[in-house]
Amino acid sequence: MAEFLKVVKYEEAIEKLGRYFPVRRIETLELMAASGKILAQEITGPEDLPAFDRSTVDGYALKAEDSFGSSEALPAYLEYRGEVKMGEAAEINLIRGQCAWIPTGGMLPLGSDAVVMVEYTERLGNDTVLIYRPVGPGENVMFKGEDVRAGKALFKPGKVIRPQDTGFMASLGIDRVQVHSPYRIGIISTGDEIVPIQNTPGAGQVRDVNSHALAAAVNSCGSIAATYPIVEDEFGMLQEAVRQALDENDVLLLSGGSSVGIMDVTVDVLLSFPGAELLFHGLAVKPGKPTLAVKIKEQMVIGLPGHPVSALMMFNIICSPFLKAGSEQELRVKLTQNIASQPGRDDFIPVVIARDGTGQLSARPLLGKSGLMSILSLADAYIHIPYEQQGLLADSMVNARLF
Amino acid sequence: MAEFLKVVKYEEAIEKLGRYFPVRRIETLELMAASGKILAQEITGPEDLPAFDRSTVDGYALKAEDSFGSSEALPAYLEYRGEVKMGEAAEINLIRGQCAWIPTGGMLPLGSDAVVMVEYTERLGNDTVLIYRPVGPGENVMFKGEDVRAGKALFKPGKVIRPQDTGFMASLGIDRVQVHSPYRIGIISTGDEIVPIQNTPGAGQVRDVNSHALAAAVNSCGSIAATYPIVEDEFGMLQEAVRQALDENDVLLLSGGSSVGIMDVTVDVLLSFPGAELLFHGLAVKPGKPTLAVKIKEQMVIGLPGHPVSALMMFNIICSPFLKAGSEQELRVKLTQNIASQPGRDDFIPVVIARDGTGQLSARPLLGKSGLMSILSLADAYIHIPYEQQGLLADSMVNARLF
Repeated sequence: MAEFLKVVKYEEAIEKLGRYFPVRRIETLELMAASGKILAQEITGPEDLPAFDRSTVDGYALKAEDSFGSSEALPAYLEYRGEVKMGEAAEINLIRGQCAWIPTGGMLPLGSDAVVMVEYTERLGNDTVLIYRPVGPGENVMFKGEDVRAGKALFKPGKVIRPQDTGFMASLGIDRVQVHSPYRIGIISTGDEIVPIQNTPGAGQVRDVNSHALAAAVNSCGSIAATYPIVEDEFGMLQEAVRQALDENDVLLLSGGSSVGIMDVTVDVLLSFPGAELLFHGLAVKPGKPTLAVKIKEQMVIGLPGHPVSALMMFNIICSPFLKAGSEQELRVKLTQNIASQPGRDDFIPVVIARDGTGQLSARPLLGKSGLMSILSLADAYIHIPYEQQGLLADSMVNARLF
Repeated sequence: MAEFLKVVKYEEAIEKLGRYFPVRRIETLELMAASGKILAQEITGPEDLPAFDRSTVDGYALKAEDSFGSSEALPAYLEYRGEVKMGEAAEINLIRGQCAWIPTGGMLPLGSDAVVMVEYTERLGNDTVLIYRPVGPGENVMFKGEDVRAGKALFKPGKVIRPQDTGFMASLGIDRVQVHSPYRIGIISTGDEIVPIQNTPGAGQVRDVNSHALAAAVNSCGSIAATYPIVEDEFGMLQEAVRQALDENDVLLLSGGSSVGIMDVTVDVLLSFPGAELLFHGLAVKPGKPTLAVKIKEQMVIGLPGHPVSALMMFNIICSPFLKAGSEQELRVKLTQNIASQPGRDDFIPVVIARDGTGQLSARPLLGKSGLMSILSLADAYIHIPYEQQGLLADSMVNARLF
């Protein structure tokens, strides 16, 4: 049996992939289309927000000092000077002893510095308003530039644009932004035994699960998956398929050929391309020893195990961190039972997450036969047992990464 | 000042919306396109998985009893009968004392019931294999139907299809599934003071933040947003805009017109449609008293506050639970400070989540002026203070819903 050529630890694999993973391209999108994408530029406040002093309530604008000392028993009497209309400049100029009606969002009249909510006022005829409660200067007012000052740094490149960030930029009139383009990721299943999922497998054959599961996983990370026909384990055919997929994508995922002989063909094919460099071939990781990575000029090819459970776990462990916008979602959970682990490799164990009556999250490891497709479908998340650790004890608190 | 017509509590609003929210349509998609969607059918295992007894390792297939008692010092000697080829039916029929080479995923030869890993064997010439370690019956084998039995119930309607579920269905040959169609959701901003975001607002005007933020929020929930031009607060124009949007969507979100007079116009317009029924008009919720819902035949119109921060918060609080596939993502967090809350309303407070050295999550409430756009953009999540509660104490554990 041939040996793995260059077995590395999990951390080293992540470090190498991080160093050589293709640089994301940049595109300019309309603001609405940019939501959920990764910002590729710095955003600074182009202007003051709000652009004018605004009322945050329906009520009467006044000079705060005119309300001082007022109460239910002893209201302040102010002269009514008219109404600020929504969406129009306030043309009223208030002096001591005067007030004006102002709607929520309306522009504060010159001379005023606070608004009394309508609930604490009473209109007497056409000329007078009674104020039953004092307000401080600035109360119920948002001043020009209080939200954002022109020139203030707001977002850094790398930030994922959430709906509220879209809203924030819209409020500042930013209608186009530079974002990172999604990666285009080619997916090729290899193996003489693999048949399309529509086929009924003959004896010894299995369906092409990986094209479907990996494409779904790639898309769920915000990248764009392109699947290619199944390729047999033959040098010439695999070379041609890899060539085409590299022409059309940034990253290529191969899966299949867990048997070492077949992995050898894959490695030979990949290293036949100019500029190819083997980053690792074999990972000290369960479940995914037969995993490899080859950098071909500016592109990356990752060979995943053929078994669908291992392939999808390894995708989550070593690929998705480079694809997902933002950081991995981790939950703090309490283990329900001991887990043994062999030192000298990193173990990743699928778990079911449950919440008890107090809101505490628990994680039940899905042990048993690791090759069962049904196990991954039961799992909510997975936990990581590092290289040097021999296992984890029941009731210990660990981090679980959501699938 | 006019009054809110039909103020309800948060829980009652959720109950009414849930009762009348439009029923999702169903569509049949190819498996790969169905990932991330909500399953609309039950899935049962159409066949046994695996379809045959498979080896889970590279090694030698044998009758387990032939390995019993073997050791490094005293190996068992077995007759070598040949090789099982990947993807082909095993044509070898083993009897006691015999073995055959089998690759990972290969089909177990008749007569064998276990596989010894290649690491614990040695080939002697063409005819003999030495076995250095005993295996039990079934060891390193996945039996036919062990993963899934034909006819077994696997997924129920309502389940969100994750990449591993896609893989699971692919392995069973399920290549088309019925899923719920995304909701089509129309979005109309109303208000005389609202201008397109490309415009520089004149005095008293503000940009149309809500069309952008709500469309982004709708799309991030897996629904399809359609935005319409800004409509002034005038009965005829608003009626025509609502009519068109109802023709083209399942749900309609109106925003703007927080001032009660303008809300009156909105309510009048909505109730002018045949089959319209006011579900609520006014919510005992901060920040979103001016929120309303009208059911128009099978469709739903939700009126959100005009202020962008309130509009987006209320969208998250009362709309997204009906749009998102799966349950809300909640984190268990420790409050960093006391929060006061007025009893008699439900309070929703944006928070910043941080993780301390031990992995414990803390939530820092973003208090201060609730109208600042910058606050929502800082927030990671929000917490809920129920109707009857007067506040929350520092260091108490609460659930935070991620934005």
